[in-house]
Amino acid sequence: MYSVDLNSDLGESFGVYKIGQDDKILKYVTSVNIACGFHAGDPSVMHKTVELALLNKVAIGAHPGFQDLIGFGRRNMSVTPKEAYDIMVYQIGALYGFVKAEGGTMHHVKPHGALYNMAAKDKALAEAVAEAVYKVDSELILYGLSGSEMIKAGEKIGIKTASEVFADRTYQMDGTLTPRKQSDAMITDQNEAVLRVENMIKNKRVMCQQGEEINIKADTVCIHGDSLSALEFASKINSYLKEAGILIAARLRYE
Amino acid sequence: MYSVDLNSDLGESFGVYKIGQDDKILKYVTSVNIACGFHAGDPSVMHKTVELALLNKVAIGAHPGFQDLIGFGRRNMSVTPKEAYDIMVYQIGALYGFVKAEGGTMHHVKPHGALYNMAAKDKALAEAVAEAVYKVDSELILYGLSGSEMIKAGEKIGIKTASEVFADRTYQMDGTLTPRKQSDAMITDQNEAVLRVENMIKNKRVMCQQGEEINIKADTVCIHGDSLSALEFASKINSYLKEAGILIAARLRYE
Amino acid sequence: MYSVDLNSDLGESFGVYKIGQDDKILKYVTSVNIACGFHAGDPSVMHKTVELALLNKVAIGAHPGFQDLIGFGRRNMSVTPKEAYDIMVYQIGALYGFVKAEGGTMHHVKPHGALYNMAAKDKALAEAVAEAVYKVDSELILYGLSGSEMIKAGEKIGIKTASEVFADRTYQMDGTLTPRKQSDAMITDQNEAVLRVENMIKNKRVMCQQGEEINIKADTVCIHGDSLSALEFASKINSYLKEAGILIAARLRYE
Amino acid sequence: MYSVDLNSDLGESFGVYKIGQDDKILKYVTSVNIACGFHAGDPSVMHKTVELALLNKVAIGAHPGFQDLIGFGRRNMSVTPKEAYDIMVYQIGALYGFVKAEGGTMHHVKPHGALYNMAAKDKALAEAVAEAVYKVDSELILYGLSGSEMIKAGEKIGIKTASEVFADRTYQMDGTLTPRKQSDAMITDQNEAVLRVENMIKNKRVMCQQGEEINIKADTVCIHGDSLSALEFASKINSYLKEAGILIAARLRYE
Repeated sequence: MYSVDLNSDLGESFGVYKIGQDDKILKYVTSVNIACGFHAGDPSVMHKTVELALLNKVAIGAHPGFQDLIGFGRRNMSVTPKEAYDIMVYQIGALYGFVKAEGGTMHHVKPHGALYNMAAKDKALAEAVAEAVYKVDSELILYGLSGSEMIKAGEKIGIKTASEVFADRTYQMDGTLTPRKQSDAMITDQNEAVLRVENMIKNKRVMCQQGEEINIKADTVCIHGDSLSALEFASKINSYLKEAGILIAARLRYE
Repeated sequence: MYSVDLNSDLGESFGVYKIGQDDKILKYVTSVNIACGFHAGDPSVMHKTVELALLNKVAIGAHPGFQDLIGFGRRNMSVTPKEAYDIMVYQIGALYGFVKAEGGTMHHVKPHGALYNMAAKDKALAEAVAEAVYKVDSELILYGLSGSEMIKAGEKIGIKTASEVFADRTYQMDGTLTPRKQSDAMITDQNEAVLRVENMIKNKRVMCQQGEEINIKADTVCIHGDSLSALEFASKINSYLKEAGILIAARLRYE
Repeated sequence: MYSVDLNSDLGESFGVYKIGQDDKILKYVTSVNIACGFHAGDPSVMHKTVELALLNKVAIGAHPGFQDLIGFGRRNMSVTPKEAYDIMVYQIGALYGFVKAEGGTMHHVKPHGALYNMAAKDKALAEAVAEAVYKVDSELILYGLSGSEMIKAGEKIGIKTASEVFADRTYQMDGTLTPRKQSDAMITDQNEAVLRVENMIKNKRVMCQQGEEINIKADTVCIHGDSLSALEFASKINSYLKEAGILIAARLRYE
Repeated sequence: MYSVDLNSDLGESFGVYKIGQDDKILKYVTSVNIACGFHAGDPSVMHKTVELALLNKVAIGAHPGFQDLIGFGRRNMSVTPKEAYDIMVYQIGALYGFVKAEGGTMHHVKPHGALYNMAAKDKALAEAVAEAVYKVDSELILYGLSGSEMIKAGEKIGIKTASEVFADRTYQMDGTLTPRKQSDAMITDQNEAVLRVENMIKNKRVMCQQGEEINIKADTVCIHGDSLSALEFASKINSYLKEAGILIAARLRYE
């Protein structure tokens, strides 16, 4: 039987600043990535978000990013692999504190933004990221871009991985996402988007911008929850995939 | 047999900024309190300090403080008990990440600076601090000022505590430290200081500034390592207490 | 002729985080207090907000606060007068950079949140705040709580001041605001609020919670813009005061 | 007559963290670049450093950097030109506050670390940096790497510039510094270093690692003050250049 995980970034509010619709998106996803205070989130937001995730019985993951609150962790920074390892361990640990305090179990780690993108391409960075996950808890699952260095590094060190695909983004022949600055980066037709995801899950194939299909692995689909249309799409893809006979569930820590 | 723990604050460097003589003070103490990135320390400093502590086989504790790097966590801030709980859980978790990654065990938690002092007197804050320790790991030992609300809160919630005394500070009749701004706050004669500590350990008594002895519990003595004279004193008190037949050891997590 | 200034806090967004309805509230006020990056705001937000203020021809003021982004500068911190002076000068200067770059003139300074409240009562802090304003530009106008130590400190050092009143808050016999935690702190009836403000401006009197009127000086009224009802009230008080024959204008730097 | 400015980075301490020997290096230089709180420095350090600079009658410049205290502003960050402009204006303004409060005049701006290096090569970034200086105060002098995009951008917008050379670094044929990671990046022989600087000033030439001389403009020489040997070298180069008939003085704002 086909199965897939739907994941969403949560807990991105900070102090008096609120973003996201965490309580609403939680109904449509099976795993959540909680910001850990560097690019977004703060201790109190993390506390509340962990409680909310446990209440909704979704798999909880850490979502560590660069120390760049103003840039929301989206700006590339020239960190060394050693620095990347250290900021990963710190943030995974910090979220772990809240999960443990609430009696839950941490399920996965998904690096955020520029760290995610840089570690997708840079082998040394990817290995530092994977090592951080492995050393804090070797049963944690590493979420990374399908086909990326991060997935390879996770497999190499011996942790479980989840290959992530994007429903609303187009792909290049080498499996990378079309950069956002290009006009054809986004898929705006929701029907087209769900059909593409179904194809990725069932046939492990995705149509590229070059007009050819390439192989792709789709363990988990990234779902946004930051707008009304995002919520609508989350609902739609959840229903569609179920009706298409695909089980929606997070990968188990122990399999 | 008499026994006491000697503890010191470690890992207070930040980025390019170096303070303390961590490698030297480690020879004279049995437990260390490692800064967790809010008032001092950063992920890379925490990583190195945990390695150093494990190498020296001292008991490792988290040393969480206020989010006030410029003020080194020494400035009072009007946080709610809920906020105090959250910053405690976050920082304990963050250090836990590094300890777990290195295969070690976290031993205790000692709040830092203004958080330590405020929670010594404020019952609600003390209970929030104790609850954070209890919920992250109920076998962690809470270090707090001897006779303080923090020690009471730890006992109430059912975690182990270590009553801390200060060798270089004078005491008031109510067991509090003489405020630093008073001219008689410090004990500068090293011989007097070690004799006072011996009295605190063996007779559970300390002479107050008012000329009378009061009861005091001395499970752990705070040792500074930030100057040459501090290191000299650390060496002296370590030798003196041993010769006086006192075992120098951290309290065990499991007793 | 009666005259009064209506002021509002602006530029409180940060990075991806948006709050406030700056473009809308600007229609109803004559001066704005722009956050300077410590408790809210960032360089890019400050740049945009200064442009917006100049476009709307309102008087521009700096709104410096404590280094407490998570707490939005609302948590008391035990800063020394010297520290308060330094964070004031830094933040006034930072906003000054943007105002000068856009060819504008800075008009006033209004401390934010906990710094405003603490300096209202603490004479040494108030004098440090006033000195910072005086030394950066002695023609800047200091906005402070009517009757507060801050107003006294401004007058003492020889700068212009603007005594601020609150339309939606009740007063105590000593001229202080009823603390927010009390149930009778807020005035929720908009009609009552505008009548009270008219009384403060024309008769220099306000009815206290104790049932007696006290003297009060109302140079400027604080207007919120962070909700639909706040905008509605801003519009209402603006119209009402004009119809009541009161000129709505910021105090001039040169009089 | 030949003349040159000797400049040094100052005010890089932060909170309880002290670095540099500001009071000592001040005897040998004619202009100083004061950190503005993003990569180093804090409001209180800036206050003290401005006082110290005025006391020593050296020319005062702002030394703005990236918002990266942990990395000391040395890590490249992918900021947009607009973001670079905004962090420049903010930090120049902040230091301006202290200079104005002390009755001094700001003389120049020298971007720090990664911002300096990135703007040396990236034309759009360089133009944003130059525009920030121009718009805050068009009489400020922009210090940048000799031959860099930053110097070109300064000249293009119409502000004065000072071409900076490094006494302890080797050069490539294109006028760039040999990257630090190469073994031949540094000149460790102090005698060789002063002779090279004399050649740069008098003959406007420097010998490259490729064995050929290239043209170079040397308005100002960067002097370090962070170690005993650095201080010794500062003293030596100051004496040597004077004896070689070179006037040591900062370029005037008005010429």
